[in-house]
Amino acid sequence: MKKIKVGVAGYGTIGQRLADGVALQGDMELVGVADVAPTLPVQALFESGMPYDLYTAMPEKINLLTDKGIPVSGSLEDLVQKVDIMFDATNAGIGAVNKKLYEKYNKKAIFQGGEKNDVADIFFHGYANYEKGIGANFLKLTSCNTTGLIRAIDAIDREVGVVKTAITIIRRVADPGDYHRGLTNALQVEPAPSHQALDLMTIMPHIEATGILVHTPVTHGHIITALVTPKEDISKEELLDLFEKHPRIRVVRIADGFLGNASMFKYARDLGHKRGDMYEIAVWEESIVKSGRDIMFAINIPQEAVVIPENIDAIRAAMKMQMTGAEGTAETNKYLGMK
Amino acid sequence: MKKIKVGVAGYGTIGQRLADGVALQGDMELVGVADVAPTLPVQALFESGMPYDLYTAMPEKINLLTDKGIPVSGSLEDLVQKVDIMFDATNAGIGAVNKKLYEKYNKKAIFQGGEKNDVADIFFHGYANYEKGIGANFLKLTSCNTTGLIRAIDAIDREVGVVKTAITIIRRVADPGDYHRGLTNALQVEPAPSHQALDLMTIMPHIEATGILVHTPVTHGHIITALVTPKEDISKEELLDLFEKHPRIRVVRIADGFLGNASMFKYARDLGHKRGDMYEIAVWEESIVKSGRDIMFAINIPQEAVVIPENIDAIRAAMKMQMTGAEGTAETNKYLGMK
Amino acid sequence: MKKIKVGVAGYGTIGQRLADGVALQGDMELVGVADVAPTLPVQALFESGMPYDLYTAMPEKINLLTDKGIPVSGSLEDLVQKVDIMFDATNAGIGAVNKKLYEKYNKKAIFQGGEKNDVADIFFHGYANYEKGIGANFLKLTSCNTTGLIRAIDAIDREVGVVKTAITIIRRVADPGDYHRGLTNALQVEPAPSHQALDLMTIMPHIEATGILVHTPVTHGHIITALVTPKEDISKEELLDLFEKHPRIRVVRIADGFLGNASMFKYARDLGHKRGDMYEIAVWEESIVKSGRDIMFAINIPQEAVVIPENIDAIRAAMKMQMTGAEGTAETNKYLGMK
Amino acid sequence: MKKIKVGVAGYGTIGQRLADGVALQGDMELVGVADVAPTLPVQALFESGMPYDLYTAMPEKINLLTDKGIPVSGSLEDLVQKVDIMFDATNAGIGAVNKKLYEKYNKKAIFQGGEKNDVADIFFHGYANYEKGIGANFLKLTSCNTTGLIRAIDAIDREVGVVKTAITIIRRVADPGDYHRGLTNALQVEPAPSHQALDLMTIMPHIEATGILVHTPVTHGHIITALVTPKEDISKEELLDLFEKHPRIRVVRIADGFLGNASMFKYARDLGHKRGDMYEIAVWEESIVKSGRDIMFAINIPQEAVVIPENIDAIRAAMKMQMTGAEGTAETNKYLGMK
Repeated sequence: MKKIKVGVAGYGTIGQRLADGVALQGDMELVGVADVAPTLPVQALFESGMPYDLYTAMPEKINLLTDKGIPVSGSLEDLVQKVDIMFDATNAGIGAVNKKLYEKYNKKAIFQGGEKNDVADIFFHGYANYEKGIGANFLKLTSCNTTGLIRAIDAIDREVGVVKTAITIIRRVADPGDYHRGLTNALQVEPAPSHQALDLMTIMPHIEATGILVHTPVTHGHIITALVTPKEDISKEELLDLFEKHPRIRVVRIADGFLGNASMFKYARDLGHKRGDMYEIAVWEESIVKSGRDIMFAINIPQEAVVIPENIDAIRAAMKMQMTGAEGTAETNKYLGMK
Repeated sequence: MKKIKVGVAGYGTIGQRLADGVALQGDMELVGVADVAPTLPVQALFESGMPYDLYTAMPEKINLLTDKGIPVSGSLEDLVQKVDIMFDATNAGIGAVNKKLYEKYNKKAIFQGGEKNDVADIFFHGYANYEKGIGANFLKLTSCNTTGLIRAIDAIDREVGVVKTAITIIRRVADPGDYHRGLTNALQVEPAPSHQALDLMTIMPHIEATGILVHTPVTHGHIITALVTPKEDISKEELLDLFEKHPRIRVVRIADGFLGNASMFKYARDLGHKRGDMYEIAVWEESIVKSGRDIMFAINIPQEAVVIPENIDAIRAAMKMQMTGAEGTAETNKYLGMK
Repeated sequence: MKKIKVGVAGYGTIGQRLADGVALQGDMELVGVADVAPTLPVQALFESGMPYDLYTAMPEKINLLTDKGIPVSGSLEDLVQKVDIMFDATNAGIGAVNKKLYEKYNKKAIFQGGEKNDVADIFFHGYANYEKGIGANFLKLTSCNTTGLIRAIDAIDREVGVVKTAITIIRRVADPGDYHRGLTNALQVEPAPSHQALDLMTIMPHIEATGILVHTPVTHGHIITALVTPKEDISKEELLDLFEKHPRIRVVRIADGFLGNASMFKYARDLGHKRGDMYEIAVWEESIVKSGRDIMFAINIPQEAVVIPENIDAIRAAMKMQMTGAEGTAETNKYLGMK
Repeated sequence: MKKIKVGVAGYGTIGQRLADGVALQGDMELVGVADVAPTLPVQALFESGMPYDLYTAMPEKINLLTDKGIPVSGSLEDLVQKVDIMFDATNAGIGAVNKKLYEKYNKKAIFQGGEKNDVADIFFHGYANYEKGIGANFLKLTSCNTTGLIRAIDAIDREVGVVKTAITIIRRVADPGDYHRGLTNALQVEPAPSHQALDLMTIMPHIEATGILVHTPVTHGHIITALVTPKEDISKEELLDLFEKHPRIRVVRIADGFLGNASMFKYARDLGHKRGDMYEIAVWEESIVKSGRDIMFAINIPQEAVVIPENIDAIRAAMKMQMTGAEGTAETNKYLGMK
């Protein structure tokens, strides 16, 4: 079978991981990645011996890279011509500019949560609306919190139906190594409702959602508490069973030493996962409580890597590699080693 | 009118503020405070010229204090004999021991949230169950989060009735200056339901409450998100009006620069409040959202000082100074300068 | 005696404290403060009943203030005409613009560390070069770290002479309540030598100084370690004695509970100091170590308030209120309650 | 050639990395690791398919492991009998107990920095005193800060001689995932001189060293500033050259995006290093400053992995695998992929 050729524009936190994720897919080929300057990820790529070919997104500034001896395989425009589909993981707003280039060569593209919704034909989640992405040209993925949250809500929705949900997002404010933003000894409240609640309703319009987001000065994963009102009653045990069977959800226990978001990061490092990444969200067993029919629980969102599986699902849908969400997500999961 | 004589056992974070609060009441007299060792608060008391008389809780170790030249006015047992009622703000578990001393001299006492419930005859909140404390000998106050939360829930309950609530407590893990505990770059999840939800149901048994608590590495105030299901519908404007009229609740706006818990602390300092303390909880106007009949909002809990007003209410109830909650809390508010 | 009339431009972290400091001086009169927008400090001023008159620095935007009901006593230009001397505590760069206004009305002004050196005729420190400020029209104060460091170095220099010093500045990255900058779980290294070492050499040109600055994610005070090579040997006991006698230096002990910068902040709050401020730097007794003739120690710099005394010294010098540093600093110390 | 058989007691932060490091040595064989309970590292080992055999250090509590289905290959005593030499990376104090077991079977052992010095015959550093470890039975390694610091000081000492040094250790207070200790918004000063300065003098007795340690609330690496007085003058360029040639030292530039300790951790993750580990210390080029003959610079110490190379050197010395430090460290470096 001919492999689907993929390129990545923007080799930052998400772009690096998209490249790694594609490289693991047996039915895809990573043609190359594009960036502008010798950022730390690009320097690491160079020190690692250039496992991925690098293209410059600004040919007029190629010397930023070549002055450091970093080999450049061409321009972003060159890369676009060589691929079937592009991942665009550039800074928010650049994707809309790059889109013209993708259109020029009649190539499909997948944008990230930071872009505006109108950059894409479809706002996509691998589990919740795979079918809508089939054959689409331009898809936008949900952001990290929404992606992880929808995994959990979708799982409940398929089992017993979900009427409404109210979420509190305890957001990590920066990634490890971020120096351009940060909070010091402060919690910060965002105006409600959070965009994640609104985005969930866009993807799953039959659910009523609201929520509040509070930034916290940590780097290793968001925590979301979700109060869910299901259509039919679901017990704590049934919910646990549902989550344990989900390939992209881990059930963890405080009693086993998983005390918080930093435990999850440590555990991923100890598993030997590249960069200490985790694709799965985690649900704490001891956090699950019932209140009448409502059920409440806490989720861990590993912000750097959680969106990678659904992004790869998007390629599968857009390129019609698999024609159902069940098949598409199963292939992604297989190659990423989940379950 | 004869002033009610009050003593404070334990001159730590809460004990200092109880002493300050009592000293402001025109109808109470602070007889003295008791502690054991020359902690920073005791050293500060000494450097300030001993505005409050100090008693030793361990006469056999009086030299810990006198060796530093700190004047000691007697023992805790001496203090107890001079007062009408004691505040016990000692470390968790010590209150139960001290209770024997209070009983020996037939004195009333008010314990803090860290003590077990059975130390007291009544679990008390100035607004929610003042009447139950009238004439009681031993009262235990709700902890800081529960105290602040009940203020808001009680206000809604009086207006439209409250059926149920689900809370997420984004907890500050230590006070400023705490070195004996702390979190570094980590969120920590506690088993659910949080004790605050359970405590709320003890005080207000007609409400169904549940919740999840997550520790965060900050020092300047907890933030609680509360989803409230009222009996009758209440609009955002009505809720704002309710909170704005409450003497112990502030409504603040992100648009005015109140971005989070650290803004509240800064503002209290800029107001010139002693120690930068704030008695009022704050509700962010922009955090209030409706979801069907449910209403959700975020509260700031200034953990060091929030319990002081309700503690003083407890003296008023126990000593029968005022016979209704409305009158008792109004007197406390007047002397503490709230509204 | 006629009081010296003082105005403050910029009512932020430093401006508020300059105003408070001037208001405490028996021989000065605070005419008013100027700012532009209803920041939290201005809102706090308003809620406190306008203890200081407020002037607008942008008359064309006076409605920013009046729309909130905040009374405005005139423009910055009005204020300048009413005073003998201005404190300029505006954001870096604005002082240079305001200087034209001060010159227009032939008024003296004192700028803060964020302005460029050429804004002023003299780079000033109350202890190290008071005499150079006498009668000067435009003075610039050293920044918080340099101000505190020079106190300690100057004290040693007067006693035994100082040949050289090497410092490490462990810098707090933001003030409490700052949301516009921050670090999260990161230390940040600045290019060496730090400007504080260079500034020290400008003020005390006979000393050779170098140093490295590292930002840390905390808010309650910088810590500087200083290695000092004195001309003549000085013992740990002699150094302690020197520091203990200095009105703007505290000697504290880890053994007494002063474990770090957060202890100092807590202690200032417990002393009842307004805003929890501390004018004095602190030296940890247990941090002092000898290495041959060299002596090393750690200093705490309370960044929000440490520069206030030297700023007030600057008024005394510029207005020729006292003609020696010994007399000038003594008056400042007396009114600020130090020693 | 027969491979040296190695066991690891204590499978925590250091024990895991010792096991990984040994597994990479072509002339060593990792026989197994021992621990007591199903900690996160042990759970990760299990989930990873048991790449290393696990032994129980408490056979009477083997069910702690087997109840979770984790296969146990025997007891620590069994493991000791199978190896030539043990790494003991148990909690401080346990090593002294385990030593009896090592003596019983006449096996050599290498202890970590947390044990008391008298547990070992020699206090060891691969570069500074390899020869003293040759054939020794019990060696103790320097702790992470001292290990990294000595690399730099030893390099200068070999080139131009070192007379004295004064260090400031800006210490990360916890590792990522640590929940049992932490600081929140506080710096903490330790009594001086720091043990690292004393330890340096034990290893390199011809150098006079002193220093101060300050804890900071971060997790990704200590930063040390070192002021070094060399015997002969050394320029910044010569120092850079020296460090750049050192296999266990990286020279990095702020201008290249290495802004602090968190940049180093991010970079190691992006390099794909297991757990995001870095064996090398880093020196910031822009931090190097001269002051007369003295030279000052800032070092990054990746606390979790920095001691691994010197530990492996210790096996080489103790087992007489190489008879000089130059040869021993070169072999370690080769297998760990440094330079």
